[in-house]
Amino acid sequence: MSLSLHTASVPVFVRSLEALSAILDKAAAHCVAKKIDPAVLGATRLIPDMFALSRQVQIACDFAKNGAARLAGDEAPKYDDTEKTIEELKGRIERTVAFVKGLEPSAVDAGAGREIVFPVGPNQMKMPGEAYLLHFVMPNFHFHLCMAYAILRQAGIDIGKRDFMGAVPDLRPA
Amino acid sequence: MSLSLHTASVPVFVRSLEALSAILDKAAAHCVAKKIDPAVLGATRLIPDMFALSRQVQIACDFAKNGAARLAGDEAPKYDDTEKTIEELKGRIERTVAFVKGLEPSAVDAGAGREIVFPVGPNQMKMPGEAYLLHFVMPNFHFHLCMAYAILRQAGIDIGKRDFMGAVPDLRPA
Repeated sequence: MSLSLHTASVPVFVRSLEALSAILDKAAAHCVAKKIDPAVLGATRLIPDMFALSRQVQIACDFAKNGAARLAGDEAPKYDDTEKTIEELKGRIERTVAFVKGLEPSAVDAGAGREIVFPVGPNQMKMPGEAYLLHFVMPNFHFHLCMAYAILRQAGIDIGKRDFMGAVPDLRPA
Repeated sequence: MSLSLHTASVPVFVRSLEALSAILDKAAAHCVAKKIDPAVLGATRLIPDMFALSRQVQIACDFAKNGAARLAGDEAPKYDDTEKTIEELKGRIERTVAFVKGLEPSAVDAGAGREIVFPVGPNQMKMPGEAYLLHFVMPNFHFHLCMAYAILRQAGIDIGKRDFMGAVPDLRPA
């Protein structure tokens, strides 16, 4: 028994990003209740030299769509990085989820046999597909997802680990 | 081509935890330079009702050792959760890495065919091995790892994404 690359990527992105979208709903409700301009939250950072919430959400989406697309040998859509409001960030998440759900599972799986070429800053780098998913895409995806969570949690939004986890599949009482 | 459960778990834990240990070295050096009691860092939180750094490190270790052990049908060692200093936290990471490295890869892989039973708060829950790894262990592991990073980053330690990623395997110029 083993995991296909699709199983280890797309459903993880979808669950996590849908959880993030629901967290942003709670953030939007918090803004209404506390009379906070939602753009203030979008610009909130853990420390001034880290990315703001909006950028963390954008980058988490990018690791999902670019990671899955590169494994599939497909081209990911480019987004403009202009989202400022919570509604706009939720829109980006929705587009990202729709894109990764639309990839052919067998095409994503086929990334396991290939070298994946991708930019890191100004450089073109390469990794075998399996290592690219496990040791590059996934840690980066989770990093930005978690930083978005940390920013909102520290800003006082009423969220917990359960919100972060989202709809965990096949979890049942023993 | 596909991923074995061992490939998708143990090397990810090892790379990430070794990266965290190196981050803690930077934190220790920062404490010396700034004359900070390292126990202050261990007790630092993003917000008062979140776990402190020391607990985040302990829980990240626990998801790694318990997750991998349960997949392997093995018993993980229990640690006492008494670590306060950076040196003690690095010791826990070191013991965790040694434990997961010592698991038989084929035993971890065999977890894919089984239901894994594990506690969630006061309840015993179960999940198929694959889903347990991908949708329970990995997001939880990354969550606590990232919160530890976020606490240290916000505390002014000079770390960046490269420190978080650690030694990414098979990454080469294209």
